[in-house]
Amino acid sequence: MKYSSFFGRTTKTLSNDMKLASHKLLHKAGFVRESTAGRYYFLPLGIKVRQKIMNIIRDEMNRAGAQEIITPVLHPIELWKETNRTESVSFELMRIKDRRGAEFALGGTAEEMLVDLVRKFQVSYKDLPFNLYQFSQKFRDEKRARGGLLRVREFMMKDAYSFHADEKDFKTEYKNMWDTYLRIYNKLGLDAVVVEADNGYIGGDYSHEFQAICPAGEDTLFYVKSKDKYYNKEIAPVQAPVLDNEGEEMLEREDVLGQGIIGVQELADFIKIPVEKTTKTLLFVVDKKRYIAAAVRGGYNINETKLKRITGVQTLELADADVIKKLTGAEVGYLGPLGLPDEVEVYYDESTSNRLNFECGANKTDYHSMNVNWGRDLKEPDKFYDFKEAKEGDLYPETGEKYEIYKSIEVGNIFQLGYYYSKKMKGAEFTDQEGKGNPYYMGCYGIGIDRTMATIVEKYHDDKGLIWPKQVAPFDVHLVTLGEDEKVMQESERVYKELQGKGFDVLWDEREGLGAGEKLGDADLIGIPVRLVVSSRSIDQGGVELKYRDKKDSEVLSMEKLLEVL
Amino acid sequence: MKYSSFFGRTTKTLSNDMKLASHKLLHKAGFVRESTAGRYYFLPLGIKVRQKIMNIIRDEMNRAGAQEIITPVLHPIELWKETNRTESVSFELMRIKDRRGAEFALGGTAEEMLVDLVRKFQVSYKDLPFNLYQFSQKFRDEKRARGGLLRVREFMMKDAYSFHADEKDFKTEYKNMWDTYLRIYNKLGLDAVVVEADNGYIGGDYSHEFQAICPAGEDTLFYVKSKDKYYNKEIAPVQAPVLDNEGEEMLEREDVLGQGIIGVQELADFIKIPVEKTTKTLLFVVDKKRYIAAAVRGGYNINETKLKRITGVQTLELADADVIKKLTGAEVGYLGPLGLPDEVEVYYDESTSNRLNFECGANKTDYHSMNVNWGRDLKEPDKFYDFKEAKEGDLYPETGEKYEIYKSIEVGNIFQLGYYYSKKMKGAEFTDQEGKGNPYYMGCYGIGIDRTMATIVEKYHDDKGLIWPKQVAPFDVHLVTLGEDEKVMQESERVYKELQGKGFDVLWDEREGLGAGEKLGDADLIGIPVRLVVSSRSIDQGGVELKYRDKKDSEVLSMEKLLEVL
Repeated sequence: MKYSSFFGRTTKTLSNDMKLASHKLLHKAGFVRESTAGRYYFLPLGIKVRQKIMNIIRDEMNRAGAQEIITPVLHPIELWKETNRTESVSFELMRIKDRRGAEFALGGTAEEMLVDLVRKFQVSYKDLPFNLYQFSQKFRDEKRARGGLLRVREFMMKDAYSFHADEKDFKTEYKNMWDTYLRIYNKLGLDAVVVEADNGYIGGDYSHEFQAICPAGEDTLFYVKSKDKYYNKEIAPVQAPVLDNEGEEMLEREDVLGQGIIGVQELADFIKIPVEKTTKTLLFVVDKKRYIAAAVRGGYNINETKLKRITGVQTLELADADVIKKLTGAEVGYLGPLGLPDEVEVYYDESTSNRLNFECGANKTDYHSMNVNWGRDLKEPDKFYDFKEAKEGDLYPETGEKYEIYKSIEVGNIFQLGYYYSKKMKGAEFTDQEGKGNPYYMGCYGIGIDRTMATIVEKYHDDKGLIWPKQVAPFDVHLVTLGEDEKVMQESERVYKELQGKGFDVLWDEREGLGAGEKLGDADLIGIPVRLVVSSRSIDQGGVELKYRDKKDSEVLSMEKLLEVL
Repeated sequence: MKYSSFFGRTTKTLSNDMKLASHKLLHKAGFVRESTAGRYYFLPLGIKVRQKIMNIIRDEMNRAGAQEIITPVLHPIELWKETNRTESVSFELMRIKDRRGAEFALGGTAEEMLVDLVRKFQVSYKDLPFNLYQFSQKFRDEKRARGGLLRVREFMMKDAYSFHADEKDFKTEYKNMWDTYLRIYNKLGLDAVVVEADNGYIGGDYSHEFQAICPAGEDTLFYVKSKDKYYNKEIAPVQAPVLDNEGEEMLEREDVLGQGIIGVQELADFIKIPVEKTTKTLLFVVDKKRYIAAAVRGGYNINETKLKRITGVQTLELADADVIKKLTGAEVGYLGPLGLPDEVEVYYDESTSNRLNFECGANKTDYHSMNVNWGRDLKEPDKFYDFKEAKEGDLYPETGEKYEIYKSIEVGNIFQLGYYYSKKMKGAEFTDQEGKGNPYYMGCYGIGIDRTMATIVEKYHDDKGLIWPKQVAPFDVHLVTLGEDEKVMQESERVYKELQGKGFDVLWDEREGLGAGEKLGDADLIGIPVRLVVSSRSIDQGGVELKYRDKKDSEVLSMEKLLEVL
């Protein structure tokens, strides 16, 4: 391809909201352009990279025995109603009606569609298992869409759905996909690690994320070295660092005035105790009839996902001032576990244990109770839990070792779905050996293509631009002509033709009227792994100048030698 | 691929609305399944064919110098408002709002998007021309969606858009795309012909359709043999067969009672004249203030597209009873050109000329005027037009020869757009040599992938099933094992492995418990071009039985010979 007829020039103009390297570089180098926030055009350079990523995934999925299909983008809303997901994911589900009033969801994830497709066939145990995948445009009505291709409202996804007779068979496929995903990321040049994760709105019991380690990542991983195991911050089981109470004695409990002081750090400063001695207590209402108080030690936040699991509830709602007043008699900000009415279930995080002379809200407007102690002032619970947000310095409970913390980007997931969909959707069954109908046991497996592309950029770039790994590079060779005299142009064309003849995909910068700095700068920015320069100097030296994008030095080689090296 | 683990079995069950061969066979053989009317799942067999079609198109588009991109599916409605197309195509445009209230159109065609993309770059005359194409899912809120993949509400389309400095340069690309399309259809095994067409809601001045000749087609082509030129029925210029008035003399005009007789054929029968002597006159209202009467001879209908062009109006509305009564004094059904008030412009189709003693409505309730004659009763107009619907038997005006009629399926279009979009959209310009901004001159080019696939089926099938041309077949070879003894299975596996090793894509029917009839029937239905059978008989004869799907005879060949032949 000649650069002069190529669409999508490099630019130096960036907008202020471009913070991430992938966002900036893919824009500057002419790979993508934003249409509206979170919706992108892929330009010729971008589409070539995307297709290479997709083809690597397609090859590995086929090799793993999965079969490609495609579903319509518009999903009949009736299907989503069968599983009640119109409620559970409605915040990001986009809906549309056609001229006849039929309603559809814009595909965000396709479990219902796949079950609906499979139930159209009379599947028997002999037909199982199978794994069906598609590459399709997905839609998520995200509140915020910043960060280029990392958080978008419309994106290409590879989503796969497997169907099994039982859990045992599913587990074989889960392992198969696990291995396949690692192979895919490896081929893409990403060091992905597998991380236990929460199933979220997908349903099912367990799932794993594939996280690419990357300093610019938006996710935080907690790593247990002795077990070589990663947890997502969201679900990492953590133990707070143990406090040193050595030599400390129980002091007399007293209520102190702390009007208007609400944050734990301010409070600790005000009453001159370490923040670890303060206690944060929140009150939640469940279904307007059940009250749950949850206490963590100062310096931690409550992780609602964990708390939901522990309490077994679907949605926790923070109690409002009226409810707090009714139950404790005090205004908001002075809640504590002391003397709460029986109708409030109290849960304690393990970080609140092993403390002496700690603080908690006095359940009395403007007052805090000081020198509270387990046993004496507060009945020690049968069980302490872990429902705090994990943070740096926390320990892995099983071994007591400190977690290592890594930043990362989520590039894929695999989910156990079990019977979550097949038991909700009518007729979602296969005939077993006895001719009886049974629901399928299912799993699903996703890779976001566009964020995978952005992640590759986050990992492979420098201050000059992109550095594409060979296997996903938009072109094999970036041929730059420096100088416009006939000899140089002729020699360039000869090199261009010869490389094309040998099957190389070449971008030839034959633009006239541009300086060497500009052309070489563009080559660095675009990041094709091999750069060749033809100039009068290279001709004088009897060849073509070769430079790899990820190396410093260049050398002039004869054409034969060059072909050998490439 | 082993058939036993393949998803998407053949079925014998058809629904009543499946009339076309492509609809029936693609369903029966397991290539597609309908989700809701006009929205299809593509199963593994279907997706393979679709991808092969797409790859043929992609290769040819690249070869023609076009560059692949992709736009988001959701188009900001503001762009469609810039060109006012929200009005002109609103009947089939689907719209959706996101959580922030931003409105989008679901992509139906992407002219505005492409102009919006290109105007984000500072394009100069040096950057022009370029042609950008995409493969993307398109949405049309069609009133009816019947006929399998031939009329759908959601489909894959290759759409391309070219940008030029002037008309001359555009014409070169138009010719380039014209040739490219013919090459594509030729590679796909379709005999496509190029047909002049109407631009419809796309805008611009002229366009051409690519029509695949096919008896089951929904379109009708009018062919002028001496010019080797096809017209779509919608815009074919036609001359009605000339009437023989030889020896006939003018008769006295009279009004006859024909109460309640309205259709021209009934009228002709009633008053005992040939239908050609009757006249059909319709009255249209334009913008509530302009009146147009249009008259054709009995037996013809009015083609509103032609009439709009002639009268230069955008929308013609048929006058209601009140307007007709007000203008003529008569009820509906007795309208004629005689004595109409001056405010009505009267247009005559050429089919009304060259007649003696013809009939027309008397503009008097229940009455028809008989023996009307040009000159004597009715002023002969300065010009007769052609605004009738073409029909079999009509003549090509230029040469007077009778048209040949063919049924066909529209598989692609190319459109001149000119400045239609670039003059409406702000900033849609390039800088010329003097540094001045000028709007781009544009064209666009589309191929519907799914209907192309259905068209291939319409052309290549028999009563047993599909007969895929090699280049788009889902597999290269359909290997059938007949019999389940170990020797046959082992030999089959050996053949399977060897063919795979040589790079053939093989579907191996190794299912147990099925008879030869069922397996061979499935092979015929699915239509892979090469069928191989391994059975004890073939082994006894020292090889594998080869049969081409489109031939009758089979022969047993040794493996070496077989590989040679394939």
